[in-house]
Amino acid sequence: MKNHLLRLARRPHGPIEEDTFAMHEEELPPLREGQFLVRTIYLSIDPSLRGQLVDVPSYVPPVQIGETMRGFGAGEVVDSRHPGFAKGDSVTGSLGWQTYCVASGNETRPFRKVTPGTSLVQAVSVLGTTGLTAYFGLLDIGRPKPDETVVVSGAAGATGSVAGQIAKIAGCRVVGIAGSADKCAWLTGELGLDAAINYREERVGRRLRELCPRGVDVFFDNVGGPILDSTIACMNVRGRIVACGTISTGYGEGSRADPIQNYFLFAPRRIRMEGFLVTDFQDRFPAALDALSGWVAGGRLKSRETVLDGLEQAPRALREIFEGKNVGKMLVKVASAASAGSSSGS
Amino acid sequence: MKNHLLRLARRPHGPIEEDTFAMHEEELPPLREGQFLVRTIYLSIDPSLRGQLVDVPSYVPPVQIGETMRGFGAGEVVDSRHPGFAKGDSVTGSLGWQTYCVASGNETRPFRKVTPGTSLVQAVSVLGTTGLTAYFGLLDIGRPKPDETVVVSGAAGATGSVAGQIAKIAGCRVVGIAGSADKCAWLTGELGLDAAINYREERVGRRLRELCPRGVDVFFDNVGGPILDSTIACMNVRGRIVACGTISTGYGEGSRADPIQNYFLFAPRRIRMEGFLVTDFQDRFPAALDALSGWVAGGRLKSRETVLDGLEQAPRALREIFEGKNVGKMLVKVASAASAGSSSGS
Repeated sequence: MKNHLLRLARRPHGPIEEDTFAMHEEELPPLREGQFLVRTIYLSIDPSLRGQLVDVPSYVPPVQIGETMRGFGAGEVVDSRHPGFAKGDSVTGSLGWQTYCVASGNETRPFRKVTPGTSLVQAVSVLGTTGLTAYFGLLDIGRPKPDETVVVSGAAGATGSVAGQIAKIAGCRVVGIAGSADKCAWLTGELGLDAAINYREERVGRRLRELCPRGVDVFFDNVGGPILDSTIACMNVRGRIVACGTISTGYGEGSRADPIQNYFLFAPRRIRMEGFLVTDFQDRFPAALDALSGWVAGGRLKSRETVLDGLEQAPRALREIFEGKNVGKMLVKVASAASAGSSSGS
Repeated sequence: MKNHLLRLARRPHGPIEEDTFAMHEEELPPLREGQFLVRTIYLSIDPSLRGQLVDVPSYVPPVQIGETMRGFGAGEVVDSRHPGFAKGDSVTGSLGWQTYCVASGNETRPFRKVTPGTSLVQAVSVLGTTGLTAYFGLLDIGRPKPDETVVVSGAAGATGSVAGQIAKIAGCRVVGIAGSADKCAWLTGELGLDAAINYREERVGRRLRELCPRGVDVFFDNVGGPILDSTIACMNVRGRIVACGTISTGYGEGSRADPIQNYFLFAPRRIRMEGFLVTDFQDRFPAALDALSGWVAGGRLKSRETVLDGLEQAPRALREIFEGKNVGKMLVKVASAASAGSSSGS
């Protein structure tokens, strides 16, 4: 049986390019004892993947030239010699950008079975890492109190759209910052945010002052750069900044064009800015997923996905995230689930 | 009796200039019931005073044109119609840049009597706000653990020199960053820091990597700008940045020339950066002063002052702090204490 996979061909400088990745085909080896074979159904396209293409030491080593691109996703077990996984199981895990993944169950980030009642899409978005990132970032790092003002940047993105809704559930006034009028309409319409700022059309600093007359208590930041800087200027005394992502400074390298000038306000306003990784909270995932599932079931937490079709679309999907082309979670659909009656296995 | 005072004449752009302040003379009014008269002996010259000259809302309203310049200091009560203060008492408080201050005891930051055994100089430096700022900033915001690596910028300054020594007392490896070879020699010689970097002569980022082979756990930052940015790059996972001051970005306005580019490391390294004001810890001042006094008495905490003579030197002192001309605390001696046998009262 053939596996198709995307390998890093050259390190990008700036946006992902045509020749950043190259498609390869190889024969899948027979499963050894303890292994199981997963067919990739969805790949989760996350901004953090871009950082792994840069040869800068970080919390994970960079992807090497010639290495299969890493990536989290959801799939189906199609063969198994592992006692814990059976053919037909739906799982999430570090599948990589390939049509099939030979898994051992000993991965750093272990494969997990998808909870019954959760769809594969939900398992890699609102009820997966994305939802958990929003949950712990907002509640544990941001610690919003009822009636406080919460601002979310990248508010129409995967994590931001969940964070904004959780802030509403927490009883806050919530202002989202996003990059188009359509996104803003979705935030204030369907998601129930109190206001939204289209940063491509409006002056963020001025609009924040208008829309947050009592200042900003929590800033859930997916963006960095000038939007972060403008929001720092509006932070209240003891304001909290959740450093979740830096999609504006883009490519995991920082940028001289996007400075933070308002650092001088940290001391007088006692601002706290704190980064986190969702994996820090692993012990508490079950309780958080219970809460998230309850909100989804109750209609209080909505989600939306932008889905590109075919493994070969993964590089484009990663590039387009940095261009703001997604609304909600960016996914690549690599194959159809067998349970849906179709199979694209080769 | 005449009072001499310095009023803000025009807002400075950049360094304090000759015409930023103007000296005035006026007759002191007779004391009303409940008031007391303090003769200024020392003025504490702090970088934060510069920020109050800028017409930007902050934790204190800016000094207005024509207003007597604010400033903390130490003095002697020379007359009193207040039951809590008697002639001859040594006090600290918001004296302002003037030779005499009419006080009511109801000031936002109340006048306090100097503890017996503490000199007036100590009362405005190592056993005053400066020492307390270093104490709470390092221990409560930075939370160093034994054997961790602590970096201090502005390490030969008033607060930095105390913070570095407290970090040594806490059992840490301590690297100071300062602006001259003499300052560095003082840090590693007399103050016992493990290493020092002369940022005017050495490349801070490279030297930090050499001197902190296990990374940086706590950064006590008095400086901001490129030194902050270089240190962020060396922070360990769960590193803490104490945002104490921003003397490099200088003038309370931020600066496009001094960006923070390394914000993108906050999330993967779970960095926490937090500002504070020493007044937040007012309830715990007595216990902290006990600790500081004990270290001073035991010879574990040393201090040094740069003293300019005469009220008219206060503007120069404030300018020179931003030029790094002080070692340790910058003070202006306005008059001699009566207890020392001289009086410069008019």
